[in-house]
Amino acid sequence: MSNPSILILPGDGIGPEVMDQVVRVIDWYGAKRDLAFDVSTDLVGGAAYDAHGVPLHDDTMAKAQEVDAVLLGAVGGPKYDDLDFSVKPERGLLRLRKEMDLFANLRPAQCFDALADFSSLKKDVVAGLDIMIVRELTSGVYFGEPRGIFEEGNERVGINTQRYTESEIERAARSAFELAMRRNKKVCSMEKANVMESGILWREVVTKVGEDYPEVELSHMYADNGAMQLVRAPKQFDVIVTDNLFGDILSDCAAMLTGSLGMLPSASLGAPMANGRPKAMYEPVHGSAPDIAGQGKANPIACMLSFAMALRYSFDQGDEAARLEQAIETVLADGARTGDLMGPEGGTPLSTAEMGDAILAAL
Amino acid sequence: MSNPSILILPGDGIGPEVMDQVVRVIDWYGAKRDLAFDVSTDLVGGAAYDAHGVPLHDDTMAKAQEVDAVLLGAVGGPKYDDLDFSVKPERGLLRLRKEMDLFANLRPAQCFDALADFSSLKKDVVAGLDIMIVRELTSGVYFGEPRGIFEEGNERVGINTQRYTESEIERAARSAFELAMRRNKKVCSMEKANVMESGILWREVVTKVGEDYPEVELSHMYADNGAMQLVRAPKQFDVIVTDNLFGDILSDCAAMLTGSLGMLPSASLGAPMANGRPKAMYEPVHGSAPDIAGQGKANPIACMLSFAMALRYSFDQGDEAARLEQAIETVLADGARTGDLMGPEGGTPLSTAEMGDAILAAL
Ligand SMILES: CC(C)[C@H](C(=O)O)[C@@H](O)C(=O)O
Ligand SMILES: CC(C)[C@H](C(=O)O)[C@@H](O)C(=O)O
Repeated sequence: MSNPSILILPGDGIGPEVMDQVVRVIDWYGAKRDLAFDVSTDLVGGAAYDAHGVPLHDDTMAKAQEVDAVLLGAVGGPKYDDLDFSVKPERGLLRLRKEMDLFANLRPAQCFDALADFSSLKKDVVAGLDIMIVRELTSGVYFGEPRGIFEEGNERVGINTQRYTESEIERAARSAFELAMRRNKKVCSMEKANVMESGILWREVVTKVGEDYPEVELSHMYADNGAMQLVRAPKQFDVIVTDNLFGDILSDCAAMLTGSLGMLPSASLGAPMANGRPKAMYEPVHGSAPDIAGQGKANPIACMLSFAMALRYSFDQGDEAARLEQAIETVLADGARTGDLMGPEGGTPLSTAEMGDAILAAL
Repeated sequence: MSNPSILILPGDGIGPEVMDQVVRVIDWYGAKRDLAFDVSTDLVGGAAYDAHGVPLHDDTMAKAQEVDAVLLGAVGGPKYDDLDFSVKPERGLLRLRKEMDLFANLRPAQCFDALADFSSLKKDVVAGLDIMIVRELTSGVYFGEPRGIFEEGNERVGINTQRYTESEIERAARSAFELAMRRNKKVCSMEKANVMESGILWREVVTKVGEDYPEVELSHMYADNGAMQLVRAPKQFDVIVTDNLFGDILSDCAAMLTGSLGMLPSASLGAPMANGRPKAMYEPVHGSAPDIAGQGKANPIACMLSFAMALRYSFDQGDEAARLEQAIETVLADGARTGDLMGPEGGTPLSTAEMGDAILAAL
């Protein structure tokens, strides 16, 4: 039997340098844990635009459809700010999400003990925080038609369409309930059902799916209140399920609560493939950070934890995922820090590669 | 000449009890500062539904169009949760905003010195915080057509439409720049121009309006990053301008940062009327808080500060507004607290009316 396959798309900015460290970790699993992967690498985002004039080449898209998992670094940068909407780096990422039909975006917001002081929130509000946000990723206002800028009378009008079918809501909700069953059995669904009909349908369908999970406690919250409650008392949540746009904002808000943005991974999962594995893409929550790109300052941990999520969700290697997560906790507890994790006390931060060294040593 | 007129709509939940205290303050201005108002009172939200079967009677709507300012308490409550969308309490509020064409919703997020400890954020992150969020209030996904729940094949689909014309964006942006000129001359505009065409148009029009205000430093931020930056370092902002839906979420997020939700007012302003005053409605940011309604526990300060905003923006009485704001700061500095402002040390909270007494005494 051939090895499971991974397509690596380092992308732009700090993407390539953090991905270099992840490749070392992948190699380690092959050499030491008898877990070899067939790894290939390709371009996405601005890097793909520079090479091909599009942010994702059709051949790359085809490869992504065939592999067992895609690992993506980050896309975008000021260099591409003036490009036409249709070829912006982000379109490469959105095309992957849409064509692979990755409907469930899992964004854990965890506060690492060693880093609780980094949060702008009080320590007791965030210490031990462990939320899972499930964001619907293939529909809503991100993809709804009609969309565009149109002439209307003597002025222009910008239009986007929020659209959710019952089945789109249902499959995202089901992912959230399944996760809750393996966690603390609480799901909070967020929308604006007081203002938007799409939110009314969302609430109705989530409620219906919830009937299949009688052990899970389901609550509903308007998204504006959700943002407030995340800031006020985030530990009240276990799993949050919400749509594409609310999920974009609320998951970033939740990520920032932890103070550990350079630490947070994500998984985007679709339907099972013929081999039983879900279509899947893994990527850090942080962006391409063009201001520090190429300087060896970036924190590779979020991208490594994304690979840990791949081990868990794509390759059914929960123990091996935990091994990597544990190694990372150990080096943090020992005081290893990249620049983004340095406190006001100062000290010498580790470079991206030195952090890689430390984690490999801990493994 | 007749007195300026105010229509009071106490609404639901704690609305009536906080409004009682505001009426005492209004009366004080008439008696002591020679600033008499013609005050009338009417129903909105669930209270209007109970009386008339609609959340806003046409007669009330007509009155709102005629007065110099509307003062609203809060709408909604669990009693009305199962009502049809079209007659929910919120529809009364949305109808007022839409028909009065109140396009600029001003939401200050201020951290009161005496209350900085209440924030879930670290004191140095929020102490002295003073942001003004300008939220577009009459368009976007709140009002765009088509909207509804439709049959499509053998399932239903929920649809809402995000729609912004150039002139809608322009007038909201202009309000933001005008405010910035009287503040710290910084405007940050938030949208998702990387994903939504309506965001592209938003960014373009705001940039164009900015050319009329060369002294104001304009920046743009994606709304997800905006949520992060609000949590990470809110003091970087002066004026934020954003659309109806992003504004709903981001302003609640910003409000919660201050830890003083029971303290925050808002103003919703439209075009100038024949007498030169803008169409205007003022309301606290907090909701109807059904859990404590009718118990004399509610904090009347947000509603009083909303009246202070009315003095400033509708009646050109900036000094009198400052007098009321100062009185409120004084009673807080003296330790007056309603239940929502009590720390873990305990003590006896003031009732709603006792807080009113204290503020009147300070005036
Ligand atoms: C880069 C951008 C298109 C993307 C999004 O809006 O979904 C990002 O913010 C994210 O959350 O992954
Ligand atoms: C009550 C509701 C309709 C309203 C809104 O969504 O605008 C509220 O959340 C607000 O921010 O004033």
